[in-house]
Amino acid sequence: MNAEKLPNIQDEIAYKMNPVITKPTLIVDKSKAIKNIEKIWKKIRRSPGSIRFRPHFKTHQSIEVGRWFKELGITCITVSSVDMAAFFAADGWNDITIAFLVNPLQIQLIDELASTTHLGLLVDSIETVLFLQNHLTHPANVWIKIDTAYHRTGIEYQHSDQVLAIAQKIQNSSKLTLKGILTHSGHSYNTHSTDEIKQIYHHTVSSMNSLRNFLAANHFPHIDISIGDTPTCSIMESFTDIDEIRCGNFVYYDAMQLNLGSCNSNEIATAAACPIIGKYPQRNQIAIYGGAVHLSKDFIINKNGQKSFGLAALPINSTLHWDQLLENTFVSSISQEHGIISTTPGILRKVQIGDILLILPIHSCLTANLLTPPTFL
Amino acid sequence: MNAEKLPNIQDEIAYKMNPVITKPTLIVDKSKAIKNIEKIWKKIRRSPGSIRFRPHFKTHQSIEVGRWFKELGITCITVSSVDMAAFFAADGWNDITIAFLVNPLQIQLIDELASTTHLGLLVDSIETVLFLQNHLTHPANVWIKIDTAYHRTGIEYQHSDQVLAIAQKIQNSSKLTLKGILTHSGHSYNTHSTDEIKQIYHHTVSSMNSLRNFLAANHFPHIDISIGDTPTCSIMESFTDIDEIRCGNFVYYDAMQLNLGSCNSNEIATAAACPIIGKYPQRNQIAIYGGAVHLSKDFIINKNGQKSFGLAALPINSTLHWDQLLENTFVSSISQEHGIISTTPGILRKVQIGDILLILPIHSCLTANLLTPPTFL
Repeated sequence: MNAEKLPNIQDEIAYKMNPVITKPTLIVDKSKAIKNIEKIWKKIRRSPGSIRFRPHFKTHQSIEVGRWFKELGITCITVSSVDMAAFFAADGWNDITIAFLVNPLQIQLIDELASTTHLGLLVDSIETVLFLQNHLTHPANVWIKIDTAYHRTGIEYQHSDQVLAIAQKIQNSSKLTLKGILTHSGHSYNTHSTDEIKQIYHHTVSSMNSLRNFLAANHFPHIDISIGDTPTCSIMESFTDIDEIRCGNFVYYDAMQLNLGSCNSNEIATAAACPIIGKYPQRNQIAIYGGAVHLSKDFIINKNGQKSFGLAALPINSTLHWDQLLENTFVSSISQEHGIISTTPGILRKVQIGDILLILPIHSCLTANLLTPPTFL
Repeated sequence: MNAEKLPNIQDEIAYKMNPVITKPTLIVDKSKAIKNIEKIWKKIRRSPGSIRFRPHFKTHQSIEVGRWFKELGITCITVSSVDMAAFFAADGWNDITIAFLVNPLQIQLIDELASTTHLGLLVDSIETVLFLQNHLTHPANVWIKIDTAYHRTGIEYQHSDQVLAIAQKIQNSSKLTLKGILTHSGHSYNTHSTDEIKQIYHHTVSSMNSLRNFLAANHFPHIDISIGDTPTCSIMESFTDIDEIRCGNFVYYDAMQLNLGSCNSNEIATAAACPIIGKYPQRNQIAIYGGAVHLSKDFIINKNGQKSFGLAALPINSTLHWDQLLENTFVSSISQEHGIISTTPGILRKVQIGDILLILPIHSCLTANLLTPPTFL
């Protein structure tokens, strides 16, 4: 360190950036995101049958990103909370599935939404069906949540009698219309190859179809099947024997999806722009303003067996665009506001305190949730 | 499951709760929190010398909790971001240390704060000192950040010449006043016994004092020492040879601190009140509305070697108070909005869909950040 040298902190460059970044900020590369949307949308349209695309909006939680979908002709959406349904309903979306089991304590807002939108609700218990019948004053569509192997919520697909009992209760309700059976194969996130992801897709579709056949044989001939995770929807080239796809993460993708093989690094459409605040050449590390309250604490184990809380790229010139990921550079630890980047001597020499480093998130849904609303490139 | 039984969902009970809970909500038990504050404050006051208590407000980020400190006579605080400093300055706090390296890109707001408060800033590079001298228009106090072993930010304490060079640059600045050397022994969170935490405390204090002696011998006779982590401040019975304590987590504590031995379970003063949305007797699990966007993804490994994203307690009658932690019950997995609780058949039988489960967070700073503002009991 040369104590006599004038400070070479690049605040001038940062201030010239359009838009101006002063603290951790979510950046979305619009053209990449739209390409991601179009790619999935094309695959769904060219699949046999008429599959409904009901993208999950929990990833972006953004009115503007929602409008990109609308411009492509997409009219129905998925959300993960009642509040999120209200948020998008206020922007004119009127066919919304809340892909989260009914929370009885929010019945008032659910009922209000049911009065203005085609609302889809999820149940996996008779108690909740009876609760809805007793408390809703407006009609709603209902999906029975099925557990094909993820073991988060839902009736296990083998327990077809339980599913049938719930279906019958829904049919007996004057306010509820049974739309179908719905699953989220979230165990596709725990895989180690794209073959394994394909196996999960095939198992999901065949389990759901067995259940549909059972229901058809028991006086329920019109049961839709809805599936939803981004890994299977990204890996499969086309879809058959399902009626609806609800994936959402694909709009941005992230390091976890890259790791799973769902996308390539050029398809990751979001980054957190984080100021560099410290440099530590003796340990080849950089400190950024960007921690757990910005990026989340989600991590992956990288190919070297290290915990990684984010990947990194440098902005191109004075823009916030990025090209290649920085090699051997990742967020190696994280606390409330700090991120520590492990990197190489060459990259350390390139960056200065006051520069912006772009962190490509491990799990874009959580990072977007923390840093919403985004800044669009 | 008895299909004919009327729904026994306890929305009536939940609605009768004061305050009404409909979705994940941060609950703070005021009397426990105040006891926690008083306990630390007493230890500091009875320690030899005159140690300044500068509690970290990043844990609670609450105007009301801040006022409890003020009522006890505490006048100076620590925050972890420039925005947080502005937030508390607006409530009348006028002696604030931003315990986070200066982010040059926020110089404008830093300078505004320096015009109205006694502002403490952290540096660990000559570049940043020169940057402050060139860009601040108001005076500020400066602390040199020291790394005693955590390796997040700071100059390693052994590199006393580097510290001296920074001290000299600060002394040469017309706008900056050198207050002292500051460290955060965050490695106390990676310990396995209270003895290990005590060793870290003693190592921290002795390292910082060696550095102070070196600076004193080099024309800096008035260097304060500031330390700050909650584990050491909770475990130690008194403090010597330091001038300032900045711990913060102790106000609420959490499962991580309980695991470290910093607190007992009755001292945890915060919980996330989460609605129960599903019951799965076949796997002894409960699904709650309460996921990564409410609790954070921080976890501990519990004594059975399992990942735990939270502990659990039942509300007492129709209040939101809690007594004992539920045995063999914890948040075993978590996704964006869902938490899955692994529990026992007995507890499963006790709770119903629509009931509230109280989740004691793993890391209260992150949970409070996500669910702020709290509801006070």
